[in-house]
Amino acid sequence: MNAMEVGLPATVPAEGLPARVRVHEVGARDGLQNEKAVVPAQVKAEFIRRLAGTGLTTIEATSFVHPKWVPQLADAEELFPAVADLPVDLPVLVPNERGLERALALGARRVAVFASATESFAKANLNRTVDESLAMFEPVVARAKDAGGLHVRGYLSMCFGDPWEGDVPVGQVVRVCRALLDMGCDELSLGDTIGVATPGHVSALLTALDGAGVPVERLGVHFHDTYGQALSNTLTALRHGVRTVDASAGGLGGCPFAKSATGNLATEDLVWMLRGLGIDTGIDLGRLVATSVWMAAHLGRPSPSRTVRALSHQES
Amino acid sequence: MNAMEVGLPATVPAEGLPARVRVHEVGARDGLQNEKAVVPAQVKAEFIRRLAGTGLTTIEATSFVHPKWVPQLADAEELFPAVADLPVDLPVLVPNERGLERALALGARRVAVFASATESFAKANLNRTVDESLAMFEPVVARAKDAGGLHVRGYLSMCFGDPWEGDVPVGQVVRVCRALLDMGCDELSLGDTIGVATPGHVSALLTALDGAGVPVERLGVHFHDTYGQALSNTLTALRHGVRTVDASAGGLGGCPFAKSATGNLATEDLVWMLRGLGIDTGIDLGRLVATSVWMAAHLGRPSPSRTVRALSHQES
Repeated sequence: MNAMEVGLPATVPAEGLPARVRVHEVGARDGLQNEKAVVPAQVKAEFIRRLAGTGLTTIEATSFVHPKWVPQLADAEELFPAVADLPVDLPVLVPNERGLERALALGARRVAVFASATESFAKANLNRTVDESLAMFEPVVARAKDAGGLHVRGYLSMCFGDPWEGDVPVGQVVRVCRALLDMGCDELSLGDTIGVATPGHVSALLTALDGAGVPVERLGVHFHDTYGQALSNTLTALRHGVRTVDASAGGLGGCPFAKSATGNLATEDLVWMLRGLGIDTGIDLGRLVATSVWMAAHLGRPSPSRTVRALSHQES
Repeated sequence: MNAMEVGLPATVPAEGLPARVRVHEVGARDGLQNEKAVVPAQVKAEFIRRLAGTGLTTIEATSFVHPKWVPQLADAEELFPAVADLPVDLPVLVPNERGLERALALGARRVAVFASATESFAKANLNRTVDESLAMFEPVVARAKDAGGLHVRGYLSMCFGDPWEGDVPVGQVVRVCRALLDMGCDELSLGDTIGVATPGHVSALLTALDGAGVPVERLGVHFHDTYGQALSNTLTALRHGVRTVDASAGGLGGCPFAKSATGNLATEDLVWMLRGLGIDTGIDLGRLVATSVWMAAHLGRPSPSRTVRALSHQES
């Protein structure tokens, strides 16, 4: 890579925000899973290795879903051992017990299940009702805990809107959150899978979860930038005490089964804001931009992240 | 245009925000002024006419700058009369007394001067020191007031960072704001010309302006999306009571003289957030998206607005 002059914003803290945020990097899994051309395992491993070199501490590595459903991630058995030596957390998705056994066989220490807040998406993504999918996850979470106390994350999709159902009642989301925590999930990731959330909606859900006794320490947020709202929503979540934010290096990815679900929040755009606010992430923005530029070159198209675009053109 | 299925976010208000926001639409002037190929006056007039049809009430029409400096806006004498019948406010930029006389001759009722918070940008943009430029604007503002009490807006560039100077002290911005108000400006627009602001910085400046006795009713904000921060910064400004927000339909434009100064905040991304928050703008998002799609077709490239992209692809 060429030397790159990386600008940084002035640091001006704001009141009522956390001192530190943990970025849960999803680019290698959520980002790449929708790529049509299969990215070779060696390239993915190099991507994860470079991401680890930026200071990221949580890098979702892959998914042990059946290869038939996500061919892009069919190389999980090759990829995971290739990065397992890295001194970072490497959570992996496990859709069911079979997936969990595959992950356990490779020594995974953190796993994630993938639930839906709506019946329509549960049907589309899992071919089950919400309750049937929760019943499917229950033994997965129990086995993960029995098998050495793995850390279990529960993803929850469609928390703010659903392409088939439209509005999603906050109470419905709270119910599934509670069920996931009650079955033993350590952490939840509240997903705005189609990017329709706005700040009042984020506040309303976090307030309702607080009212239902869900500790904010166990919540992460996962916003999509489909309508350009991801960072405002993240800022709102931070004001509610959320300290775990999902983001995707370079803004890679989306959701293959949801209409208009393009654009994860770009990690670089997030880090720019957090850096400006004086919120520690431990991430070197220059290295992160360089990593996304490298990955974009491999994929043959520019990163959609505004920060990546601005900083990688700033070579004068 | 084809029928377009326009999605809207769920409306969930948040506390501490204004009930109504006035969008100051800058696409026709700030947006188009950087286009290399001159957009014909009839197309610009049609653009403004369509913008007025969306419910926008303030549409910056053009600039009476010397044609040598901004050839794209050399048609101001043709354009302004072509839209003067519209029942909306049509502010125009006037860089100096000569520009003001041209605007007055055409019956303009709202004008704007364009100042800089930094010496470097004042030099680059106006070939003057900050104080010399203020001295230049003083008779312009006085004449605008004498000539029938025109509404005068004062733009202030580089309020959050400068490509040559880096950080811009808040006190320096406050000083120029005070000077612009003291000479008779009715309203100020605080510009983040290179897009480097983050929410704490926005809070700090608005707090300092409040401390200096500047009424928030007289402030507008003008954020650029260079690093994806414009909407988070806007949300922060709304929390401080700001009720005037500059935005550019489809995200057109930037600044011709500032490095990396790409991307005005897209009006559509702003309206999506405000609509979700239940904040009234009077703007029909579907019509606005259709207008930006129409303009993008004329310019031959897609809109950078995420909302425009999401909604204009949502045809199924």
